[in-house]
This record gives sequence, C-alpha cells and structure tokens, in this order.
Amino acid sequence: MAEINDTALDLLFRNARSQNGWQNKPVSEQQLRELYDLMKMGPTSANCSPLRIVFLTTPAAISRLLPAMSEGNQEKTRSAPVVAILAYDTEFYEKLPQLFPHNPDARNWFTGAAAETTAFRNSSLQAAYFMLAARAVGLDCGPMSGFDAVKVEAEFFEDGKHRVNFVCALGYGDPTKVMPRLPRLAFEEACRIEID
Amino acid sequence: MAEINDTALDLLFRNARSQNGWQNKPVSEQQLRELYDLMKMGPTSANCSPLRIVFLTTPAAISRLLPAMSEGNQEKTRSAPVVAILAYDTEFYEKLPQLFPHNPDARNWFTGAAAETTAFRNSSLQAAYFMLAARAVGLDCGPMSGFDAVKVEAEFFEDGKHRVNFVCALGYGDPTKVMPRLPRLAFEEACRIEID
Repeated sequence: MAEINDTALDLLFRNARSQNGWQNKPVSEQQLRELYDLMKMGPTSANCSPLRIVFLTTPAAISRLLPAMSEGNQEKTRSAPVVAILAYDTEFYEKLPQLFPHNPDARNWFTGAAAETTAFRNSSLQAAYFMLAARAVGLDCGPMSGFDAVKVEAEFFEDGKHRVNFVCALGYGDPTKVMPRLPRLAFEEACRIEID
Repeated sequence: MAEINDTALDLLFRNARSQNGWQNKPVSEQQLRELYDLMKMGPTSANCSPLRIVFLTTPAAISRLLPAMSEGNQEKTRSAPVVAILAYDTEFYEKLPQLFPHNPDARNWFTGAAAETTAFRNSSLQAAYFMLAARAVGLDCGPMSGFDAVKVEAEFFEDGKHRVNFVCALGYGDPTKVMPRLPRLAFEEACRIEID
C-alpha cells in the first residue's frame, strides 16, 4: 500500500487554515485547471458530478459578486485574486448518458425531490474535493456561506437552472489575518463503534 | 510552499476507486481513529462539524444494517470489514458554544430551515473529507446511497435527532470487483472563467 507523507497530510488537513485576507500574488488559469483535474476524480453518486464552478479572476468580475456578499465577507472577497462560485446544475441528470453510459436508465433515477437532494449532497462532496485539491496545488481557500444566494444566481446564472452552494476565495493567504485554530469534537463525541 | 508528491495525489484522487468487494483483511480501531483525526480538521461553516459516525466493525453489527440496504448493495455491505454510517446531528448547534466559543451568538445563527441546510451541506463536506482521509490512512472506500434512511435511523439513532447522509464501507478493496473508470466532465463543461 502506498503511503502519504506527513508533508501532504499537514498541507491538506492538519496545518491548512481558512483565510481571511490575501497576499497580492496572482493565481494562474493553469492552477485552476490543475485544481479541476484533481477534484473531478472524487466520487459522486452514479458519477453524477453536479458541481458547476464560476471562477471570477479579475477585480471587475469579483466586483459583480460584492453586492451579494454579507458585510463581514466584503473585504476578503474583494481582495482575493480569484473567487470561485460553487454551484450545482439542478438538471445534472441530463448529463448522465455521458457520465454513466452503461445504464441508460440512470437519468430516470433522479426526479423531483431526489434530484435536489442528490445535487446538493454531491455538489457539497465535490466542493470539499475542490478545497482539498486547491490546497494540493498550493493554494489557500477562504470558503464563505454568508451571501444572498438569490442575488448571486440572478447575476451569474441567468438560465434559472443553477443554485449556489457556497463561495470560495482562492489565493495565497495573509498569515496575519488567520484566526486561532478552533477546537474539534473528540472521537468519542462524534463517533460510536458498534460491535454487536 | 510545500508540495504534495504524485504518490499522494494518485492515492487520494487519481487512482483511488470506489469498491464493490472486499479482501478478507481486518481494519483496526487505531486506523479509524487516525482517519477521524485527519477528517475532523477539514473546514465547516462556523466550525459547526455536524457529522456523526457509527462504525459497524463486526459481522453482527453490520447485519443490523442489511435489512435497510438496497439489493445491489447487500453483498458489498455484508462482506466489508467495517461499514460507516455517515449521519448528521440535527441539533448540531447545541455544540457551538464548545466549537465556536468566541461568539456566544453563533448558536442562534442556525434555526429552522438554516439548520437543516447547514447540517446537510457541512456533513456532506465532512463526508468527503472522511473518504479522502480514509484513503490517506491506506483504506479503500465503498460509498453507497441506496438504502432506506428511515430504517437506518430507526435502528441506529433512537433519539430521532439524527439523519443519515450516506453509508461508506471501509477496508481493502478486491481489485477484481472494481468497475471501469467512468468519464468526467471536461473543464469547459463544468467551469467558466469570468474576466469582466
């Protein structure tokens, strides 16, 4: 079995921190493509892959998002080199003939409430892969849930078929703006082992 | 900037595959604790950490889950050394005074529909961290969404305050049971770059 070294585990899990401010250092399109090529490999239910990403890569593009962001998220959004809007396609099942080609019936598994639940669950899984993949290509993340989703969807998804899950700034974090690490639940608080 | 080597990226993203059968090889409690100690560090909104995990670690414990699993998931559940039920605590906000201690108001941010959405989104993020952390400690994953959630909740969460997100078998996969790799969406199909 291959082993992952501590450098990787520190960078992905142990030492990585959510960022609140950004260095003035650009992010390249090549990095965004490397990020996507890693994150797309993470598992989703029936390979449904509902996440859709809008990368805002200039101050002009980011300025279109600012009116929707909550006050506490204004400056850390404005100052980021890239902001990714992580959304899902509510009609993701239309791509199942391409993504799950061996079973033509798969498209019909997701109708009504199952579609929404599947899209939200699996786009959230993919959003987690996104953040770990960003760290893997050397970027820091600043995930944010404080925004007006209706405004974001009206500005960036005119087709009415996409829902925003959350927003994640990308770049090189300003270490002076990082908050102290918060506690986590102990194993016994979050987990239970059943033996019978 | 620290770099992650290709061995790690292959093991976490590129070469890892969802498993449909298992080798007769045990998983230790120590591995489950190492898995948790990595996954718990992944970011959640206001550190809310809603995921709760029930590890079924014996054939007797796993047999309690089988009546809820769909027919196609029976054998790959029964034959796994460990099956994890990935659930969320609908009253996760009760732990915010412990998890987000600097803001006593945080508990009140999550009421009504916001609680359910937050718990589902963030437990899904944590479930993705769970699968990548399992791979990081050398385990394979077999995530499954085909089951009767009401039955699982009745059997394993008598308090009525937990909802199952999905189920993930853990162990050492049988390579002869792995399906061919399915295609992923191209960057241009899933992503858009906005420059103005």
